[in-house]
Amino acid sequence: MKLFYSPGACSLGIHVILEETGKPYEGVVVSLKEQAQLRPEFLEVNPKHKVPTLQRDDGTVVTEWPAIALALAGTAPEAKLWPTAVEDQVRCLEMTDYVIGTVHPQAFSRLFAPGRFAPSEGDHPKVLEVGKSNAEKYFATIEKGWKGGDWVLPSGYSVADAALFFVEFWWVKRMGHQLPPKLAAHYERMLARPAVQRALKAEGLEA
Amino acid sequence: MKLFYSPGACSLGIHVILEETGKPYEGVVVSLKEQAQLRPEFLEVNPKHKVPTLQRDDGTVVTEWPAIALALAGTAPEAKLWPTAVEDQVRCLEMTDYVIGTVHPQAFSRLFAPGRFAPSEGDHPKVLEVGKSNAEKYFATIEKGWKGGDWVLPSGYSVADAALFFVEFWWVKRMGHQLPPKLAAHYERMLARPAVQRALKAEGLEA
Ligand SMILES: N[C@@H](CCC(=O)N[C@@H](CS)C(=O)NCC(=O)O)C(=O)O
Ligand SMILES: N[C@@H](CCC(=O)N[C@@H](CS)C(=O)NCC(=O)O)C(=O)O
Repeated sequence: MKLFYSPGACSLGIHVILEETGKPYEGVVVSLKEQAQLRPEFLEVNPKHKVPTLQRDDGTVVTEWPAIALALAGTAPEAKLWPTAVEDQVRCLEMTDYVIGTVHPQAFSRLFAPGRFAPSEGDHPKVLEVGKSNAEKYFATIEKGWKGGDWVLPSGYSVADAALFFVEFWWVKRMGHQLPPKLAAHYERMLARPAVQRALKAEGLEA
Repeated sequence: MKLFYSPGACSLGIHVILEETGKPYEGVVVSLKEQAQLRPEFLEVNPKHKVPTLQRDDGTVVTEWPAIALALAGTAPEAKLWPTAVEDQVRCLEMTDYVIGTVHPQAFSRLFAPGRFAPSEGDHPKVLEVGKSNAEKYFATIEKGWKGGDWVLPSGYSVADAALFFVEFWWVKRMGHQLPPKLAAHYERMLARPAVQRALKAEGLEA
């Protein structure tokens, strides 16, 4: 298996899941800083020009964070990364999609790339402000709705924790902000996992 | 069960899935035009102020399109709306999340609400242009990657078809544009389904 990732991008969450499965894989850097996702050789693998992208040993390619997470969980049922009860799967997807479809694009995309929102540079401070207040609002919503104990799901650790982790990492490490208490504790628990440490190290990131 | 929806919003796809299950439900209108999603009584149900929102008979609430789709599919296994093989589930999520996490927020949100992107009104034409060219690019990507026959998955009709349907509907009916050939045929096949007709009628929409 090959994971195409960019250091510190949302692919970090998938990197964590791969490390949790314990299966062999090759990490391939597609540096977003260098716009490497737009190079023809990568567009041939994933015409959507996005990381994470998973290429399996039979050559098939899987895109979209939640789909890749499910595919990887399926390679290692013993790691129990995707819950088995439908109700737990629903809650797992609910958190994962909140991160992938809201927290990332509505908060962090504004913070990382305001120019994609507002063509006029003079408007960028406003875009950054909305991004920051969205992030605060979304983290507060997750904190308030927290149903788990140590992990997102009361049934135990799952791919939803890896989804939540990469936005926690962005907020704390990239932006220097504080998380509300339950999420701060979740973030610390994630950092204590050997798979998380291996994924960070593989990407050249400091925890 | 209660489905909170706004006529013609992305909740239309979930409305279709509910009709496919054949289970009894109550549709509750939360008109986005009237900003009804921000009223205290709805915020109590879903603090994220989004439709679709599902409230089940035991009072529990499910949010996020893919999670609601999975929850509903689970109430009617005989309707086979969520595939059983993991590989088909992966492809089902891949399409669903592409629609929910990219086609909707990166194309249609620009087209429907340019002001959420660019604070300056003078920039809105540029935002609309990017929205339109994104939509064209995304539909072309789906057309090119089409692996199914009549439906998104070669294994048959699934919630992924309902996800694709609501953005096809937006493009054709709300914007007056044309879809590439395979998607145009998919859209027609969707319109021919009694469940789709019932959902449109329930929302007061013309097909
Ligand atoms: N919907 C995609 C989003 C992935 C995404 O936004 N990836 C970003 C990095 S965090 C990216 O590759 N951006 C490059 C680009 O847009 O060209 C998913 O769920 O995987
Ligand atoms: N990530 C959500 C997105 C839902 C969404 O964007 N809904 C729109 C209507 S199409 C909405 O309710 N907007 C109201 C608001 O943002 O206040 C999901 O998957 O359900």
